[in-house]
Amino acid sequence: MFESAELGHQIAKDVYKKEVAKLREALLDVQFDLAESKRFPVIILIGGVDGAGKGEVANLLNEWMDPRRITTCAFGPPSEEEASRPPMWRFWRQLPPKGEIGIFFGSWYTAPIISRAYGESKDAELDNALEDIVRFERMLTDEGALLIKFWFHLSKEKQKARIHDLQKNPKTSWRVTERDLHHLKLYDKFRQISGHVIRETSTANAPWIIIEGYDANYRNLTAGSYIRDAIRKQLDNKTNGNNRSVAAPILQPIDKLHILNTLDLGKSLEKDDYTKQLEKYQRKINLLTRHPKFKDMSLVIVFEGADAAGKGGSIRRITHAVDARFYKVIPIAAPTDEERAQPYLWRFWRHIPGNGRITIFDRSWYGRVLVERVEGYCSEQDWMRAYAEINDFESQLIDNDTLIVKFWLQISQEEQLRRFEERQEISFKRFKITEEDWRNREKWDAYQIAASDMVDRTSTGHAPWTLIEANDKNYARIKILRTLVDALEDRLGNVD
Amino acid sequence: MFESAELGHQIAKDVYKKEVAKLREALLDVQFDLAESKRFPVIILIGGVDGAGKGEVANLLNEWMDPRRITTCAFGPPSEEEASRPPMWRFWRQLPPKGEIGIFFGSWYTAPIISRAYGESKDAELDNALEDIVRFERMLTDEGALLIKFWFHLSKEKQKARIHDLQKNPKTSWRVTERDLHHLKLYDKFRQISGHVIRETSTANAPWIIIEGYDANYRNLTAGSYIRDAIRKQLDNKTNGNNRSVAAPILQPIDKLHILNTLDLGKSLEKDDYTKQLEKYQRKINLLTRHPKFKDMSLVIVFEGADAAGKGGSIRRITHAVDARFYKVIPIAAPTDEERAQPYLWRFWRHIPGNGRITIFDRSWYGRVLVERVEGYCSEQDWMRAYAEINDFESQLIDNDTLIVKFWLQISQEEQLRRFEERQEISFKRFKITEEDWRNREKWDAYQIAASDMVDRTSTGHAPWTLIEANDKNYARIKILRTLVDALEDRLGNVD
Repeated sequence: MFESAELGHQIAKDVYKKEVAKLREALLDVQFDLAESKRFPVIILIGGVDGAGKGEVANLLNEWMDPRRITTCAFGPPSEEEASRPPMWRFWRQLPPKGEIGIFFGSWYTAPIISRAYGESKDAELDNALEDIVRFERMLTDEGALLIKFWFHLSKEKQKARIHDLQKNPKTSWRVTERDLHHLKLYDKFRQISGHVIRETSTANAPWIIIEGYDANYRNLTAGSYIRDAIRKQLDNKTNGNNRSVAAPILQPIDKLHILNTLDLGKSLEKDDYTKQLEKYQRKINLLTRHPKFKDMSLVIVFEGADAAGKGGSIRRITHAVDARFYKVIPIAAPTDEERAQPYLWRFWRHIPGNGRITIFDRSWYGRVLVERVEGYCSEQDWMRAYAEINDFESQLIDNDTLIVKFWLQISQEEQLRRFEERQEISFKRFKITEEDWRNREKWDAYQIAASDMVDRTSTGHAPWTLIEANDKNYARIKILRTLVDALEDRLGNVD
Repeated sequence: MFESAELGHQIAKDVYKKEVAKLREALLDVQFDLAESKRFPVIILIGGVDGAGKGEVANLLNEWMDPRRITTCAFGPPSEEEASRPPMWRFWRQLPPKGEIGIFFGSWYTAPIISRAYGESKDAELDNALEDIVRFERMLTDEGALLIKFWFHLSKEKQKARIHDLQKNPKTSWRVTERDLHHLKLYDKFRQISGHVIRETSTANAPWIIIEGYDANYRNLTAGSYIRDAIRKQLDNKTNGNNRSVAAPILQPIDKLHILNTLDLGKSLEKDDYTKQLEKYQRKINLLTRHPKFKDMSLVIVFEGADAAGKGGSIRRITHAVDARFYKVIPIAAPTDEERAQPYLWRFWRHIPGNGRITIFDRSWYGRVLVERVEGYCSEQDWMRAYAEINDFESQLIDNDTLIVKFWLQISQEEQLRRFEERQEISFKRFKITEEDWRNREKWDAYQIAASDMVDRTSTGHAPWTLIEANDKNYARIKILRTLVDALEDRLGNVD
């Protein structure tokens, strides 16, 4: 969830200065057009961890835009007047009218998150509150509002460093409160709860936009650019009547860093090591899948990655270790006619394993947010809502004692080219390379952004993605087998 | 919730015969067009109480339409294969493809309702299951499916009679199982739970259609006509891409009976009686609103009804009894510019009373599903989703210890005319009658249907509608005051 906001994003000072000048002009433009049109209100939620610059962003936005058409509302503990009414009343009162912008500093998310982190409420109560929030936000967007939800994030180390810096400086030490220090101690708890909240409330019309808050330049420029794009996009949408809201724009990292292009693809493994470890892990997988308790669970393994990333070879290293009666490998290509006549998840439900069985998907339901997104096979609304639908789908499997292990195999563009050319030279591998593979290569960047979004939005606590540095096949295969063994041992206990 | 399905709807045999012949032809037509277009699947859920004719309807539909393009699935206890997979798997397997019709006899609703009624699950678990269902059904309709959810209802007396009839006849007595008799004992529990389920899962795209099941002619004709209209409406909608689904048609009672035109408007009260009771109830209202515990709650009273139904006079009979510092009367007319720039519920949130206070709404948020629906001031999708939004809104008030009392004042069309004419003759009342009032009269039937739908869909256990027979003003005012006193005493204890 937060991986993309822990990469150390930053923007150099000179670049920032130049970009901000352009951004401010563009923001004033969209704000003016918004006010003229009076078509919809813009509600900006500012959430995130302490020290990530929430206040600075709110101040900057007021400075960059025309403050006469912005209302900034901070929500502390409720007043007596507010406490005697339903909790949502205070937010309703502050909603900006059509044509204007409201910045909400603290929001309807604050109380549910804090009370769960302090242990004052339970998971079920939090989930009920989140369902209420989803319905409330749906009403807002159905009514035409543009809802932008920012989450400013810091890694634990960065938050510690930030608070330490503030304390050291006599001019700022007063800003560090007891509450900040207490929250720092609860960092892991807050991280887990916020991740859950963000996942459950990221909808197609109002997704959370997670921004790394450490480098002020990156943070400010990213937030400002996103607001510019989101307002412009909704202004450009001329649909009237129903469903006036449009899918929110996806955040494009302005420094081009994402979780895939920051992987260290130089990792490799010697042949000898590889052979030894391969044997060790295959033996374990064999034992684990014959474990008596394996009969009460099932296993779903998902492989995604660029063409020629090594999915097939890795799958064979798993299947060699397992009794053929217990697994199925499902290669996912274009849907059949029968599949096309059904909701898109139907073709995967068909292959869900029963207890004691394994299904390995060579590509999967994630096609919806990869190939279908990039190639435009489905509408933007369709793939935006797919994140939530996929999380729902996987939750149902997990509730049924299915273990889900998901691999993304990452290779470099150069390595892919090398493998393509190799395949064309080796006659028995020639069938593996088609015109389409070459076409897909041209969209490399788009696929990388889509995959990075996918990992951010669907790497859940119960079904995390494992990113595999796959330029070296030996290294990749062993990491895959080891991850699988760890996940199985976690469920069934160690074998040996 | 079930009031409209307990009116004794029926269709005479000769009418039925004539109508069915036309209906069958129309059903075959839409089914053929659906199959030709292959644009969407039709999923028909058959739910409801035992003995309401669920099986007969499923059989008839197969008889009336081309059975080669219908699949009927009955869901009993899960098989071993099904039990080893997530609960939804069995339903996914049976989804009809685009162009075809699936009749689901028992559905994803069955297990949550039964297990709650048997006390195997709690309210929170039921609500979680319902949220999952709403998301699942939203996915289906987002994917373009037409989802028709029938609930066949019998009043307790009718269900008893039906089972008794079956038992008496040796040819049918075998059909009455132990389970049926057990469920009859649990009637009230099932009614309460089903009402809750239906309210929470009636969305704009997939509302429940409640049909009285006692008279077979009415039941069959209503179900068949609804299917015909729903498929035709979706076929006529040519929108492609996003949001392919359209708002479901509203059920129009084919025998023209609804909860409002079946009220006994002859009820009246003598002047003497009226004066005595007026004094008694006003005294009680005064005591109750000065009760020490009244400071920890608030009171919202809603008045709706046709023009000249007597809302203003009734409101004055309440306010005369209450300290003027503690109440506000909010007359709702067309929204102001400021209100128009906000989501539609905003103008009512403004007037929510704090603790110890009373707000009386002379017309209310129900305008969305009355005047705005009938006059076309908002789109069909907008008012269809308003039922759920209003229920959400009222739940929030109730959770905050607000008592909500809602009155619908019903007069006959003749009585309205008499009052209009009287107003025109009495100079000081002339301002009360406008051109618009005369125009509204022309849409009498449309308003009555809208009001009847409103009561069906928003009369909740915690905020029920009270229907007031208002042709006689004395009778109406006393019934209103008595209802209010009963509701307050229910909360605060008896006074006297």
